[in-house]
Amino acid sequence: MPLIRVSLRKGKPSAYRKALADGIYLALRETFNVPEDDLFVTITEHEEDNFFYGANYLGIERSDDLVIVQITVSNTRTVDQKKALFQRITERLGTEPGLRPEDVFINLIEVEKENWSFGHGIAQYAQGN
Amino acid sequence: MPLIRVSLRKGKPSAYRKALADGIYLALRETFNVPEDDLFVTITEHEEDNFFYGANYLGIERSDDLVIVQITVSNTRTVDQKKALFQRITERLGTEPGLRPEDVFINLIEVEKENWSFGHGIAQYAQGN
Amino acid sequence: MPLIRVSLRKGKPSAYRKALADGIYLALRETFNVPEDDLFVTITEHEEDNFFYGANYLGIERSDDLVIVQITVSNTRTVDQKKALFQRITERLGTEPGLRPEDVFINLIEVEKENWSFGHGIAQYAQGN
Repeated sequence: MPLIRVSLRKGKPSAYRKALADGIYLALRETFNVPEDDLFVTITEHEEDNFFYGANYLGIERSDDLVIVQITVSNTRTVDQKKALFQRITERLGTEPGLRPEDVFINLIEVEKENWSFGHGIAQYAQGN
Repeated sequence: MPLIRVSLRKGKPSAYRKALADGIYLALRETFNVPEDDLFVTITEHEEDNFFYGANYLGIERSDDLVIVQITVSNTRTVDQKKALFQRITERLGTEPGLRPEDVFINLIEVEKENWSFGHGIAQYAQGN
Repeated sequence: MPLIRVSLRKGKPSAYRKALADGIYLALRETFNVPEDDLFVTITEHEEDNFFYGANYLGIERSDDLVIVQITVSNTRTVDQKKALFQRITERLGTEPGLRPEDVFINLIEVEKENWSFGHGIAQYAQGN
């Protein structure tokens, strides 16, 4: 059920952006028990003047390759699972498309299980459904 | 107060996209007691390589017409209201602009009532305001 | 740690949009104890037919200059801090780039402290990190 929003600077090729979507999805499958084909990703490319970041916040040296990943998920995961997810996304995006670990920013938004409809107007994850 | 984010593939005419905004707004009015004129919608159109979806997740056969609707609302509704909202959005978008029920994806983000300012820098829904 | 999403109509110059990012960031520093350089902002510009708003909701007369600000933050602030943030953002954007207070719409999404990774795949704000 995760809804994945990826934001980055304009200019990366299509295969690079697909690798972002694939890597995040696979990391979710590995650490958050996300089922196969449960893949919903939007990518938004920003011009330089619409994308701002702290280049050294927390002593992490970011570059214009920074990727901001915001994932909406149900509120059913432990802190350890979240830590594992962050690590796995960063590893996978490091391998493909080759992001520096400094350039992976991740945020999770958690919602109730009944807050999703995947089609047909039904709350598929609500209790009793 | 809902803030509605609509994401879809590029290529639909203006009237089609307006029908999405209108249908979601009217469904919110019917099921979530949203007042008249409480309408805030952004639509983002994505190229094919910036929009990924599971084409068969939960056995629901989605198409490139998939519309992802993410709505931020106050955390004051019941599960039954959420179910009614999902059903009503899907019905309305089925009528106009004519979306298949398989192509309506909805997610709710819930926030505290004091998390909104509709203008003038005031938290209009906070207790005591 | 705030992640700031700004949405507005297309057509404003680069300096205008930078002033939005700067003003929101500075207001967060003043009212939410946000550290220096903790600045992550995406701006999305919308065509007229992808940006809808209630022009008079709550009796506030909005114009096409409306700016929708959605900020994801950790759930550690009081109601008074939120009120102060709204007021300060609106004041700052009134000064620069010169927004009418009617045209500042703000929403906060709150998340757990462990829901952030600012790089290196680590949950920097989780307990024990």
